[in-house]
Amino acid sequence: MNRTELQSLGEFGLIRRISAGVTLQNPESVRGIGDDAAVMDVGSQYLLISTDMLVEGVHFDLGYVPLKHLGYKAVAVNVSDIAAMNGIPKQITVGLALSNRFSVEAIDELYEGIRAACHSYQVDLVGGDTTASPTGLILSVSVTGLVDKDKVAYRNTARPNDVVCVTGDLGAAYVGLQLLEREKRVFLANPDMQPELVGKDYLLQRQLRPEARTDFIHELRELGVVPTAMIDVSDGLASELLHICTQSGVGARIIEQKIPIDALTYDNAVELNLDPVTCALNGGEDYELLFTIRPGDYEKMKNHPDVAFIGYLTDQPQTVELVTEAGNAYPVKAQGWEHF
Amino acid sequence: MNRTELQSLGEFGLIRRISAGVTLQNPESVRGIGDDAAVMDVGSQYLLISTDMLVEGVHFDLGYVPLKHLGYKAVAVNVSDIAAMNGIPKQITVGLALSNRFSVEAIDELYEGIRAACHSYQVDLVGGDTTASPTGLILSVSVTGLVDKDKVAYRNTARPNDVVCVTGDLGAAYVGLQLLEREKRVFLANPDMQPELVGKDYLLQRQLRPEARTDFIHELRELGVVPTAMIDVSDGLASELLHICTQSGVGARIIEQKIPIDALTYDNAVELNLDPVTCALNGGEDYELLFTIRPGDYEKMKNHPDVAFIGYLTDQPQTVELVTEAGNAYPVKAQGWEHF
Repeated sequence: MNRTELQSLGEFGLIRRISAGVTLQNPESVRGIGDDAAVMDVGSQYLLISTDMLVEGVHFDLGYVPLKHLGYKAVAVNVSDIAAMNGIPKQITVGLALSNRFSVEAIDELYEGIRAACHSYQVDLVGGDTTASPTGLILSVSVTGLVDKDKVAYRNTARPNDVVCVTGDLGAAYVGLQLLEREKRVFLANPDMQPELVGKDYLLQRQLRPEARTDFIHELRELGVVPTAMIDVSDGLASELLHICTQSGVGARIIEQKIPIDALTYDNAVELNLDPVTCALNGGEDYELLFTIRPGDYEKMKNHPDVAFIGYLTDQPQTVELVTEAGNAYPVKAQGWEHF
Repeated sequence: MNRTELQSLGEFGLIRRISAGVTLQNPESVRGIGDDAAVMDVGSQYLLISTDMLVEGVHFDLGYVPLKHLGYKAVAVNVSDIAAMNGIPKQITVGLALSNRFSVEAIDELYEGIRAACHSYQVDLVGGDTTASPTGLILSVSVTGLVDKDKVAYRNTARPNDVVCVTGDLGAAYVGLQLLEREKRVFLANPDMQPELVGKDYLLQRQLRPEARTDFIHELRELGVVPTAMIDVSDGLASELLHICTQSGVGARIIEQKIPIDALTYDNAVELNLDPVTCALNGGEDYELLFTIRPGDYEKMKNHPDVAFIGYLTDQPQTVELVTEAGNAYPVKAQGWEHF
């Protein structure tokens, strides 16, 4: 039998291969693989469901990630997928595989974080599975949410001339990760060194304990705006924008100056010899919301202090461009993450 | 900080500890941790959700488990949890963590099994997550289902005098596992030995490719019977019966002769120096349905060829007994599984 290595496909290639053989049989199944969450028609509303795995040594390093933060983050990143569909999260289940290296007290700490996130996002922990693992810790969280049928936001429904918007700021989680990795190297080389993390709380918090933007979903309701498309920024702005453009069959022009980057992110990126814009475009794990609105909805949103209007969509599907201050346009490319 | 070992709590102890800190906040959350699936009120029906993890080296040995069967089983055991709530399964999500030891062709084989099970049970694969793992393969499947509100079957609603019923036969999956383990030892000792598995297909199939009893849920609808309580037999009859009795606050008398054991299971258990009744009581992984019905419903069901009536419930919560042919009564104890 032939052997094809996983790394030759990459994560997105593997997902495409898996999806290719899948058909939906049930009338309740409105949307399957290919968006932030699946959609099921349960009567007057749509049920949303999404799942995410976090694997020790791949997604987190317990050398600098406190278990409490890990528990919080595992819930937040799942809740973020429900927010990305314009939905309200309701319930989670937690699958946990762990080796006997972990004590009962360690599990208590993990669940303290999970419960704190459940409280923050008003979701209920309703079930799960706990089992042994030969090595390390694996968390698998599934989340359900609800959304009114006329408010669900997909990735493939953006239209030319829509305004491209993003909440909060980008790149901080990636810069935070680089700081933690640097401190780890310093610590391994010399355990007596003091960590140089004073004043960098915001960057560390964005990496270790990110928040899902459920708050903004409620604000969209109050503003009376339904995004034409939405996605959460887990892999970086470039990758997410390309998902919306490819799936919607549109192009985009993004104005570099409009990409929201916090001053602390900017300064620390430069100090780490990183380009701040690249951190925002390809860093990932910000869990902000990237969305598009009809030009007519811009008036309702233009004064929102936490939304940046970073560009607009075009009718040229193959052309997703970043326009620099000097007026040059460069194609936006997704770096993505190659786990294998 | 104190360190308490996981094995001092065991799986059920850990689940109790986790559940203790959990409260339900959302009005939609009808039932959380503690049954085969969680229950959410989505309007005219209840949504059911359950999740299960399968870990290489803990739940399966790829030395004798074909990946296609593993994929099928991962779906079937989750669907079984929906059946245990008297529900109809609708959708699954699959989380997959795997090391680069696995090829693309291996993943194709796994998903072939997943798709075959989706077809069998009419569930749609609607999402998931694929990621790297430092070692081995971990599958985390979540399943949703729907049930009419007046038909949901919990574990804690059985009543004294209810008739205890079980579908199919028990112990075969456990005997099948023992045969596979024996053949593995023989093969490791002498790779030229031919496996002695001829004529044992039923036992192997019960272990490697079990079926969820969704078929029986449809039959319950046709018979017009709603079980007073139900659970699927994943950990063994003894453990499941104790769950129903403890949670419902009732006792039980089970008649040993009535426990359904297939002739092939019986003969092979004896050949392996195992007590066939112990295999049925404590073997697990049969994925049959253990349920209770009102005495008045017995007439509707008594001629069903695939249901055994194995005893009845009493009003003595502390007394769950097995009555032997000689008329002696022994307390039923759960061996359960200690993963840690």
